[in-house]
Amino acid sequence: MSSYAIAVPATTANLGPGYDCLGAALTLFNKFEIALSDEFRITASGAAADKIAKNKTNLVYQSLEQFYERIGKPKPVISLHVDLQVPLARGLGSSATAIVAGIIGGNLLAGSPLSQKELLQLAIDMEGHPDNVTPAMLGGCQLIASAKCGGWEFCALPWHKDIAIAVAIPDFELPTAKARQVVPKEVALKDAIFNASHLALLVQALTSANPSWLQSALQDKLHQPYRQSLIPGMEAVQAAAIAAGAHGVVISGAGPTLLALGSAGQIEAIAESMVKAWGQVGVKATKKCLSIAKQGTTYTSL
Amino acid sequence: MSSYAIAVPATTANLGPGYDCLGAALTLFNKFEIALSDEFRITASGAAADKIAKNKTNLVYQSLEQFYERIGKPKPVISLHVDLQVPLARGLGSSATAIVAGIIGGNLLAGSPLSQKELLQLAIDMEGHPDNVTPAMLGGCQLIASAKCGGWEFCALPWHKDIAIAVAIPDFELPTAKARQVVPKEVALKDAIFNASHLALLVQALTSANPSWLQSALQDKLHQPYRQSLIPGMEAVQAAAIAAGAHGVVISGAGPTLLALGSAGQIEAIAESMVKAWGQVGVKATKKCLSIAKQGTTYTSL
Repeated sequence: MSSYAIAVPATTANLGPGYDCLGAALTLFNKFEIALSDEFRITASGAAADKIAKNKTNLVYQSLEQFYERIGKPKPVISLHVDLQVPLARGLGSSATAIVAGIIGGNLLAGSPLSQKELLQLAIDMEGHPDNVTPAMLGGCQLIASAKCGGWEFCALPWHKDIAIAVAIPDFELPTAKARQVVPKEVALKDAIFNASHLALLVQALTSANPSWLQSALQDKLHQPYRQSLIPGMEAVQAAAIAAGAHGVVISGAGPTLLALGSAGQIEAIAESMVKAWGQVGVKATKKCLSIAKQGTTYTSL
Repeated sequence: MSSYAIAVPATTANLGPGYDCLGAALTLFNKFEIALSDEFRITASGAAADKIAKNKTNLVYQSLEQFYERIGKPKPVISLHVDLQVPLARGLGSSATAIVAGIIGGNLLAGSPLSQKELLQLAIDMEGHPDNVTPAMLGGCQLIASAKCGGWEFCALPWHKDIAIAVAIPDFELPTAKARQVVPKEVALKDAIFNASHLALLVQALTSANPSWLQSALQDKLHQPYRQSLIPGMEAVQAAAIAAGAHGVVISGAGPTLLALGSAGQIEAIAESMVKAWGQVGVKATKKCLSIAKQGTTYTSL
């Protein structure tokens, strides 16, 4: 068993008021074939195949290296093929897919010495925040909070079947580092209370699909007001989606993708309205209607 | 029908990370008899009967005045008897009981012109924050977040039957105004994220009674670290309760009462340990083991 196919879902993190703590896996997957090999080789397919590194700076490979460092064993020579379906640097967790694939791939090639919890901790350490890699690995909508005695508490939130997801992905990149820079390190107490109360409400809103709760709970004061300036047309896209019936529109991850929640019957029209609104201010965007990926990362031996 | 008996429960607000947004009604009640009368008269019974105002500065009467101002009618002459069971200025919502009694009493005497929602909004405006008056009026454990289009979203949270409540009430008062002064107006972003993630986790912890989630979720970084200095012995009381099996210990409201959550089988021993720990640092305290008051304010005509 020295060859594996691994599928890792895209994720949306920073969901509304859930900055750095709430993320969900989406039904859009990057696929990785990883194998022990006589020579190091990385190949890629998919729309952004030419944009990813084919040498040892490749993030999947670097994560695999980290895994072997963690278990204290020499890293093997591998071949890797990446089939990229998750757009790069758009706020849909493409780097989390690479980190998770490298770590899980390493664990499989090494005979699975680490538990899922240990793999997840390693992935969080690499990514620096937990809300992409956790749903990417475990699937579903995941709330993550620091545990009292170190480590993390992971809490899978029920996601009501009537809440559908639309994303509009613009044709420009927004590096996470740049999006983090604009968020201030100090905030008003009232904004902290605002986000806490609205995130707690969002938990109940996602479970119940109560439209008024969803509408109110998707508001945020900690990151989106600062990032809005980095995403031209954001206000127009939000207004269009809400006019088309969306409960709310949030920045997916660090952006620039915008994500709307709405009812299944309206989600296609919501997605369409977002792309149209962006088009009217000169931004090309593509739309996808997605669901929650319940399973997270899956793999088979080849 | 011009005479009513009204029972309003004590409340614990600011529950753990739920500063200004999460409160619960407790099975300890102030009782009010309010009637149209030929002459103004206020009497009181109960432990702190001599401490409350018997003139028109009485908070129940002032709330009744506010109610009549709100409906634009002249206020009637009333007689009021208050039976005080909720200790004053200890963080158990005694002022909220007075505000709710005055407003609901006024509404009853006026023939119920306002809806419960309108009465609640009036009570929140008077109290300045929603997390005492909401559970005092509606009962249960209530999460309150600002609504998108003005007003509030009220969300009753299920409270798992295996989570019992102990309070230790020390023999000194801590005025809410003083407790608010020590809380800074600006906080670190990471503390804001901490509270948001832990409050969201608390919602799931209260529903599930998952001990690890409860333990982690009851932590707070927005108010308790600053208020601790106003409550001598707090650390010792917390440590004792946790050693006796408590999931966590939080300041009830603005303090100085400390509230522990634990299993029903251990809650008596937890309460006892808190009083003992306080005694060892020279603070006299009394204990009560309480449940969630599911009904909120109730009344009968006399």
